[in-house]
Amino acid sequence: MEENKAIPASNFVSMACPMPLSHRETIVMSHGSGGRMTLNLIRSVFQKHFQSPLLIRGNDFADIQLDNGLKGQRIVVSTDGHIVNPLFFPGGDIGRLAVSGTVNDISMSGGIPRYLTASFIIEEGVPISDLERIAASMQQTAEEAGVQIIAGDTKVAEKGKADKVFISTTGIGFVKESTNIGGEFAHPGDTVIISGSIGDHGIAVLAARNELGFRTTITSDVVPLNHLIQCVLNAAPDVHVLRDPTRGGLATTLNEISTQSKVSIELVETDIPVKQEVRSACEILGFDPMYIANEGKVIIILPEDQARAAIDALHADPLGKHAVIIGRVTESGVTPRVTMKTSIGGTRIVDMLSGEMLPRIC
Amino acid sequence: MEENKAIPASNFVSMACPMPLSHRETIVMSHGSGGRMTLNLIRSVFQKHFQSPLLIRGNDFADIQLDNGLKGQRIVVSTDGHIVNPLFFPGGDIGRLAVSGTVNDISMSGGIPRYLTASFIIEEGVPISDLERIAASMQQTAEEAGVQIIAGDTKVAEKGKADKVFISTTGIGFVKESTNIGGEFAHPGDTVIISGSIGDHGIAVLAARNELGFRTTITSDVVPLNHLIQCVLNAAPDVHVLRDPTRGGLATTLNEISTQSKVSIELVETDIPVKQEVRSACEILGFDPMYIANEGKVIIILPEDQARAAIDALHADPLGKHAVIIGRVTESGVTPRVTMKTSIGGTRIVDMLSGEMLPRIC
Repeated sequence: MEENKAIPASNFVSMACPMPLSHRETIVMSHGSGGRMTLNLIRSVFQKHFQSPLLIRGNDFADIQLDNGLKGQRIVVSTDGHIVNPLFFPGGDIGRLAVSGTVNDISMSGGIPRYLTASFIIEEGVPISDLERIAASMQQTAEEAGVQIIAGDTKVAEKGKADKVFISTTGIGFVKESTNIGGEFAHPGDTVIISGSIGDHGIAVLAARNELGFRTTITSDVVPLNHLIQCVLNAAPDVHVLRDPTRGGLATTLNEISTQSKVSIELVETDIPVKQEVRSACEILGFDPMYIANEGKVIIILPEDQARAAIDALHADPLGKHAVIIGRVTESGVTPRVTMKTSIGGTRIVDMLSGEMLPRIC
Repeated sequence: MEENKAIPASNFVSMACPMPLSHRETIVMSHGSGGRMTLNLIRSVFQKHFQSPLLIRGNDFADIQLDNGLKGQRIVVSTDGHIVNPLFFPGGDIGRLAVSGTVNDISMSGGIPRYLTASFIIEEGVPISDLERIAASMQQTAEEAGVQIIAGDTKVAEKGKADKVFISTTGIGFVKESTNIGGEFAHPGDTVIISGSIGDHGIAVLAARNELGFRTTITSDVVPLNHLIQCVLNAAPDVHVLRDPTRGGLATTLNEISTQSKVSIELVETDIPVKQEVRSACEILGFDPMYIANEGKVIIILPEDQARAAIDALHADPLGKHAVIIGRVTESGVTPRVTMKTSIGGTRIVDMLSGEMLPRIC
């Protein structure tokens, strides 16, 4: 990619900070006033961690200079709100989730994420130390992904009018003109791959809420997938569909793709990787791992003759080492549907999630 | 500008909608599940109103095709969270505010806003009819501004864990390479213009909360300013600073500019336009209109010899018909500061807002 420069800052206005916040303080309504205390919050917490050398101009906009213009590329944009409860869970936190989720949505276009904006809605009374942890985690995750947080905003709601911290992130990236990847491009005969085991994120968040009723060592899989996906695309350039099975899980996401592409998808139940601990937790709780959210897995649908190359590329990366083929795309018949050959030899329809099993999981 | 095309959709997945929502329904947790009910909400409310012909692909990313690449232009990005209480107020609503606020932040770069994303955090129990009103208002405001809503996301929080509806919008626009407008470019000798009367938005929202204790006909000034600003830039191409005095009001915004540019700013109190009703409300409540939020006004700082041309351009547009010169930029002295010649002949320092007068105003 060309060297892009961003001259940004948004409402994260950069100015002298007369009274840095202490870790022992909590958020008060004045931190949302737009005045001196907002400035202190931004300087003491957000600018300190989001140390892009570019977060210095102090305007309400960020300015992206592309040295080579956009020759042969399109802009890719995605937005996502994050309201996970609790803020911190085994394997991650809301900050890591907010960065990874949006980085991954951009990556699912086959493009390269470059810039993020972050809008914080904070409840009065939140400890500054929690915001510090979240901001540091966002910056660390942004560095892992190689993206810059270039603009932000903070608002404060009265105690009881929000739940601690909500973060909406928007990602901006670039994709080659020649890349055409999307949920509408699955084709009969294609192979369906999943990059690893399903259900880890949802069960880890439930565990953090003490809703399991037993102890578990499951950790969330939340991670930026952009580098892994570029490795796959280098090895298997004709990928048709990339999508991360987040809210609603693998079952819902495959149903979305089946509808978009007007094809059916046949899965083999015994090939779908589920960790034993996740499987046990689901059995005890009466959940189906097919509907549990993931935050570090990708579904890859591609021509059968490139499946081996894609699997090899996935296995070469720690994030994809348990990648497997889980099914194939077929003609749609009367209605597009997702079916599964079950472990006892039957076939069942795998529908979208209806109702809500796990609120506030992302 | 070149003809850009966006091939978008984000988590606003486009699919068959088996059970359209009725206006009499309310939001339940399942509307945030990512499954069938989320799809119904998106189809029944958001996609219906945000009828960009492009919101059809159903991927978690939007794809912007620039026919001419970015020849001679930079990308401009801004993000803003909106938590105004109440959702509906005289002259506007949270949807109009969310679109106008972000359109205006992009416009303050001198650039042209083109695309918006919207992330909704919705409290369980919100009537669908309220979401409909908000979505329709967003679409109408987007049309006024000439921008497209290209990507979105919806999350649902339990009753009591959010306050009805929060909306985070991110804007993307383009600015000519040759344009250099920002809060850091105010220069001694420059003229300071305001495009109209101050304080209308804040007082209108207070009135809607029934916090005034008396009746008023004041309405919010919330409006997209992008067309007005382009008219000003055509007439006065060497504008140094554009900024909308939102949260914190005119006083706080001028202090930000003074600090960024390392200059002082001298205002003339009697030249600052305040509607009589706003002035009366402020006197009764003990507020200073200099600190009250505006959502349809812009501060313009430019060389003195272009001030007349800018004022003429502003007066030619209904949104700028009360534009006036309110002061000038001077050398900073020891510390940059904003001062005001008062109506009784003295000079006082105009500081940033400290503390919070009016929470949840935007």
